[in-house]
Amino acid sequence: MVKVCIIGSGNVAQHLITAFANSGSTELVQVFVRDKSKVAHLVAAEIATDDLNALAEADLYIIAVSDGAIAEVSASFPFSGRLVAHTSGSVPIGAIDGKNRRAVFYPLQTFTKNKPVNFKEIPICIEVEHQADYAVLEQTAAAISSVIYPIDSSQRKALHVAAVFVSNFTNHLYQIGSEICEQNNIPFDILKPLIAETANKVRLLSPRDAQTGPARRNDTQTIEAHLAFLRDENQHRLYEILTQSIISNGKKL
Amino acid sequence: MVKVCIIGSGNVAQHLITAFANSGSTELVQVFVRDKSKVAHLVAAEIATDDLNALAEADLYIIAVSDGAIAEVSASFPFSGRLVAHTSGSVPIGAIDGKNRRAVFYPLQTFTKNKPVNFKEIPICIEVEHQADYAVLEQTAAAISSVIYPIDSSQRKALHVAAVFVSNFTNHLYQIGSEICEQNNIPFDILKPLIAETANKVRLLSPRDAQTGPARRNDTQTIEAHLAFLRDENQHRLYEILTQSIISNGKKL
Repeated sequence: MVKVCIIGSGNVAQHLITAFANSGSTELVQVFVRDKSKVAHLVAAEIATDDLNALAEADLYIIAVSDGAIAEVSASFPFSGRLVAHTSGSVPIGAIDGKNRRAVFYPLQTFTKNKPVNFKEIPICIEVEHQADYAVLEQTAAAISSVIYPIDSSQRKALHVAAVFVSNFTNHLYQIGSEICEQNNIPFDILKPLIAETANKVRLLSPRDAQTGPARRNDTQTIEAHLAFLRDENQHRLYEILTQSIISNGKKL
Repeated sequence: MVKVCIIGSGNVAQHLITAFANSGSTELVQVFVRDKSKVAHLVAAEIATDDLNALAEADLYIIAVSDGAIAEVSASFPFSGRLVAHTSGSVPIGAIDGKNRRAVFYPLQTFTKNKPVNFKEIPICIEVEHQADYAVLEQTAAAISSVIYPIDSSQRKALHVAAVFVSNFTNHLYQIGSEICEQNNIPFDILKPLIAETANKVRLLSPRDAQTGPARRNDTQTIEAHLAFLRDENQHRLYEILTQSIISNGKKL
């Protein structure tokens, strides 16, 4: 059984701790946090430590801290030659201090505090410095997820950008929709089935085939009416640019 | 039992025909189409007509045609004083010819050909010219959906703009994500759980509370790295403007 140690107490760390704690096929030997109270609701007191020098022996150390802290945390480990992975979408594998064997264990999902996720469906993207370490990473990923991809640093960078578009930017469009509802005394709830179906459609259709709406139809009259309606400068600009993007994309066909 | 007649054979018309045909509490008395073969797979031959003068007596005529054709189709009806509704998000109730009693029956959803939808969850937005007609519209909507809202023409216009943001524009962001994957030999499938969870999150959280990502954190380093990565002019511009929008939105708090 793979012995795993997790470093960190943020969103990703907490979700990973929960997933490993519930998995029968890995052993969560330790969690390192600066403030042990942050994981007191997740693990037994003897599992948590705030002392780097007390880090237990493990097959894999997973650093789930903010991007900027990965280099420093990995450099402060009081051991070498062990397998150390970070969980970031945007940090290259080389950011991990070279005294240990580097790897990446990147769960591609949007994690929200206190909202449980079904880890089984979350793709885990794996990268290793030494091919011999791939099996340990794969076995660890398989303990919590059924979707595993080998993704190198340059692909992971692209993937993270793509994720920003389909998740962060998409959520921002939900917010624009909710603002427009609010400004017109319409409950945002009315849009929720549409949001769900729009996401649901691309499980089966390519986004290109799923595209509908005034821009796709090049329905100038509706587009003009919508632009005239949008008095908020920012909403107006976003509508214009996204519409142009859909129209020019259609022409590329 | 409300007797309904549907005019049209496009996506919305076909989905409505299916929903009413499967509903026990309305009677679909007739479907008017120019080309009867288009609904031959949906209704019995004797229900379809291509002759406006043969339109049967009904409690409600639902015009599910393209926005631009609503005025003309409603003017061509060979009767007056009856209840006539259109199904458009962006056309005012007044577009329906005034010789009949006007109404709107707007199902807020993205309809894709050959992809079944669960009508029960689709909000139906109702507007009537004469308050006395509301009950018939409501009863008809209740036969196929459990979510009914009274929405007037000005609210419906706002709602349609909001729907373009959360559905058409969102789908376009999925397409940008899929393009980036394609350009970097990454299967688009890897993003699907993220797309599903992003949509799922706003069922419980407000989009504002659900917002994550580099722009939300004002993580300039990651934003700059992503912009440097995006060589495609259109992708680069969208990333920049959506990021600015999230940042300035955060400042409004």
